[in-house]
Amino acid sequence: MNNCAHTQRVIERTEADSELLVCVKCRPKANSETPGDNDGLRPGRRLYDALLAAGAPEGVRLRAVECLQNCDAGCTAALRGGAGKWTYVYGNLESALAGVLLEGARAYHAAPDGLIPWRQRPDHFKRNCVARIPPAEFPDPLEESDT
Amino acid sequence: MNNCAHTQRVIERTEADSELLVCVKCRPKANSETPGDNDGLRPGRRLYDALLAAGAPEGVRLRAVECLQNCDAGCTAALRGGAGKWTYVYGNLESALAGVLLEGARAYHAAPDGLIPWRQRPDHFKRNCVARIPPAEFPDPLEESDT
Repeated sequence: MNNCAHTQRVIERTEADSELLVCVKCRPKANSETPGDNDGLRPGRRLYDALLAAGAPEGVRLRAVECLQNCDAGCTAALRGGAGKWTYVYGNLESALAGVLLEGARAYHAAPDGLIPWRQRPDHFKRNCVARIPPAEFPDPLEESDT
Repeated sequence: MNNCAHTQRVIERTEADSELLVCVKCRPKANSETPGDNDGLRPGRRLYDALLAAGAPEGVRLRAVECLQNCDAGCTAALRGGAGKWTYVYGNLESALAGVLLEGARAYHAAPDGLIPWRQRPDHFKRNCVARIPPAEFPDPLEESDT
């Protein structure tokens, strides 16, 4: 253990907060019936506005992002959290799914490693996970399989 | 500035290292001609072995990961780095692309924010980026557009 106040403050902030990152530049998918730019707002921005209006769960910070480069899969959002959490990226979102996304964010924040128990996982998360990124420390799968 | 030795050590380690995370459980794509599990090694594991044999560039740590949940897009790898770097996820990889991936990892490590200049970016990266995740601190795109 160390008693450095600066380090402790940084770690506490990281451990406490989860972030819901929403691409505000996402356009509709090529074959989607979702309206496009006609009202001046992209679908990604409309999703962000719906999330903002509904309010993020306690411990979750909503942040707009320029681009998550998942542009072929409709609106995209990512969930990330403290040092021990996996980061998840979900696609095919739209403003009508804001409530589902917020419920998923609440469950993600409650899960120490970010893995939402299957029964609590929103159906949209089950079918539209684009990628996940491990936390800094994670088990080496080759050590498990080679021994 | 703070003079806490612990914090400085942590920051130095974080800033210095980039990581190339490779899913070793990836199977071939459904329509791929890449051989499957017949030799006992999954394509993701073969990619990892090819990267290990070629050797990671200086400053880049190669790590095997259980699953990056991009299972529909062939072999998947992620690049992440210090506190100021974007994280990138790339799909449709195979062991024959190990050299391309390592060259991309070298360019990623050299880029302070992880954004590889377009002319240095491997063609595979240009066409197969699955998602990216921002660093902890990034500009708010709405502040830019609303003012």
